[in-house]
Amino acid sequence: MVNIAVLGYGTIGSGVVEVLKTNSDSIAKRAGDSIEVKYVLDLRDFPGDPIRDKVVHDINIILDDPEVLIVCEHMGGVEPAYTFVKNALLKGKSVVTSNKELVAKHGAELLNIAKERGLNFLFEASVGGGIPIIRPLNQSLTADEIMEITGILNGTTNYILSKMSDEGVDFDTALAEAQKLGFAERNPEADVEGHDACRKIAILSSLAFGMQVDFEDIYTEGITKISDIDIRYAKALGARIKLFASSIREDEQVYAMVAPVMIRADHPLYSVNNVFNGIFVKGNVIGDVMFYGSGAGKLPTASAVVADVVDAAKHLNKNIWTIWSSKKLELTNIDRIQHRFFLRIKDNAKVKEQVAALFGQVEEVRAEGVSGEYAFITSDMTEQELNEKKSSLADVLSMIRVRF
Amino acid sequence: MVNIAVLGYGTIGSGVVEVLKTNSDSIAKRAGDSIEVKYVLDLRDFPGDPIRDKVVHDINIILDDPEVLIVCEHMGGVEPAYTFVKNALLKGKSVVTSNKELVAKHGAELLNIAKERGLNFLFEASVGGGIPIIRPLNQSLTADEIMEITGILNGTTNYILSKMSDEGVDFDTALAEAQKLGFAERNPEADVEGHDACRKIAILSSLAFGMQVDFEDIYTEGITKISDIDIRYAKALGARIKLFASSIREDEQVYAMVAPVMIRADHPLYSVNNVFNGIFVKGNVIGDVMFYGSGAGKLPTASAVVADVVDAAKHLNKNIWTIWSSKKLELTNIDRIQHRFFLRIKDNAKVKEQVAALFGQVEEVRAEGVSGEYAFITSDMTEQELNEKKSSLADVLSMIRVRF
Repeated sequence: MVNIAVLGYGTIGSGVVEVLKTNSDSIAKRAGDSIEVKYVLDLRDFPGDPIRDKVVHDINIILDDPEVLIVCEHMGGVEPAYTFVKNALLKGKSVVTSNKELVAKHGAELLNIAKERGLNFLFEASVGGGIPIIRPLNQSLTADEIMEITGILNGTTNYILSKMSDEGVDFDTALAEAQKLGFAERNPEADVEGHDACRKIAILSSLAFGMQVDFEDIYTEGITKISDIDIRYAKALGARIKLFASSIREDEQVYAMVAPVMIRADHPLYSVNNVFNGIFVKGNVIGDVMFYGSGAGKLPTASAVVADVVDAAKHLNKNIWTIWSSKKLELTNIDRIQHRFFLRIKDNAKVKEQVAALFGQVEEVRAEGVSGEYAFITSDMTEQELNEKKSSLADVLSMIRVRF
Repeated sequence: MVNIAVLGYGTIGSGVVEVLKTNSDSIAKRAGDSIEVKYVLDLRDFPGDPIRDKVVHDINIILDDPEVLIVCEHMGGVEPAYTFVKNALLKGKSVVTSNKELVAKHGAELLNIAKERGLNFLFEASVGGGIPIIRPLNQSLTADEIMEITGILNGTTNYILSKMSDEGVDFDTALAEAQKLGFAERNPEADVEGHDACRKIAILSSLAFGMQVDFEDIYTEGITKISDIDIRYAKALGARIKLFASSIREDEQVYAMVAPVMIRADHPLYSVNNVFNGIFVKGNVIGDVMFYGSGAGKLPTASAVVADVVDAAKHLNKNIWTIWSSKKLELTNIDRIQHRFFLRIKDNAKVKEQVAALFGQVEEVRAEGVSGEYAFITSDMTEQELNEKKSSLADVLSMIRVRF
């Protein structure tokens, strides 16, 4: 029997307890031993819940119990999660977490502590919910140099953009619907401003390149400026607008960004809609691979946590090697990155001349029922060039990067 | 330094040597040691090739060399691969293979020999080319009971069906084009009759359910009967025809089949086109996940082989646990399985009455430019019911299972 403790009995923590119970037989078979929840740490009590007798309010009861071999952390946020997790490792316990803030900020250090002690620090559930992506990156794509990771990593924003596209509604209406259905928080900032996706791509980039990618360094733009008019133009182009979190290697340099992009059906992430997540990886020998599934939700996320618990139980005294050095990877300034750009500007008598003078030949775009503006797609140019040209235009209504 | 031997210097074997060279630094970092090809076994010599001095023609040179720790087998077919691989394991060497015939037939036994000796028998490249699927099934989806695995597992047939759909050409034309481009063999039977996909789904099913699924037990139907007329009807239905290899658990019973099906855009495998492969997995807690990538090709397949070599090198004296018992899993007879069915029959004066009498209400389907026949989709019924009804119809032109 392997005893574990669950820190935080919210959606994911209670999901972990549920999955361990639902599939206890097959999990025991795969782990080589039964997994038993000995403690649940939470500020609250849970009278009537089957785990009520396991609830403790003091982390030290868990840390000081040598029978607890694995700690699952689902409190979210950096503190006190960081202190609890670090102390658990220092006390000889392996740790499994679903906490992206913690992993993005302290992943390298916690992995190192685990490695030094022959323990494990596992975090499959911190990115892409149930989708296996951390373990494939660490253990399956080891023959490759990773050239690109691009993910639709946030289910809330993907739901909002899908809703806007399917029903023609504006951002606020789609957000309200997402909140009503429980797909968006009351305070949706972390999702809609791209911060959630930013932490997740920081984690994936650190693993792909083996060095610390600080999320603060990643250019991040949310979806709050995307309007229903933009969506109409995308449709006219046979495209969809998606919030991409990307990390791309070019000539031994890496740039990373979170931003809305237009893609067409030939992109593997085109059909990742609603609350689903998808992660596209390009390796220098494997070519393109894509992973798709539920990026959030109680049971899918708990499935990823429990798979990590199984792995930790199978490797109680053996560290599973993960390459993520604390040495910082300096990202390329995105100013130098080239794309095509979609631009909408207010119409005026001289708009075409002005655009032609600035951008040369462009691809004009028209959308049904939209008037009083001029929309076009530029040729390839750097972000810096675009910004320079854009600054001499009055009344830019929107700018979206184009990936086709 | 970890010495390996490569058996078979064809497309995949030479790809393995190439990938090990191209990415030698990052591979050494991930494996914890450099990987060195000491021998290449082939019947031929390769004058002028950088590996010419490593070529041997006698397997015993490799088996008797204690410096060789890992053997990569890429000869294909059951014999002599089976004898060579088994002897390598008995001599204390781990084995990596891309050989689906070998794994489908002898996987359970070879895994067991490896386990008893603290060695590894790894076969990520045997299914889905470069796509990580074996390791995710073994190590990432361990919290789940697998309810379904459905794959587009054969690139040749997927290319042919995509070509027929995109260009309206018939089967023979599409096959000829695939042969011209090197996507199909001169003798395409193993691909177009579904035998290749059948072996691959047998491997995935054995891993998903932990017991031996014999490929001979799997109902297998190829794509040779799919006509350009069928494709026209699929288009009229907003559907695509794909060769699915499926293994589905229902009420503690498992059925498996390889057959063409019609799917619509809401199926995660709908956008898996051309030579790409996709594997859809449904777990009882994770829900739906999908893996996508190049299902064949020299470098993608070699990438999967080399990832296994890295894993074997990291676990030289430790077996990576794989649950695949030699106990046979009895598959449910597909007679009892329910679907909707698409049927085309020759038109005659009484065809509608006849169909109504047999099938009750059906969904009529019309395709542009097709006449002289009557096409419809039945309601849900078992394969047995369908066959009974079908046998009393004269002139059935085609029958395709429908998954929407």
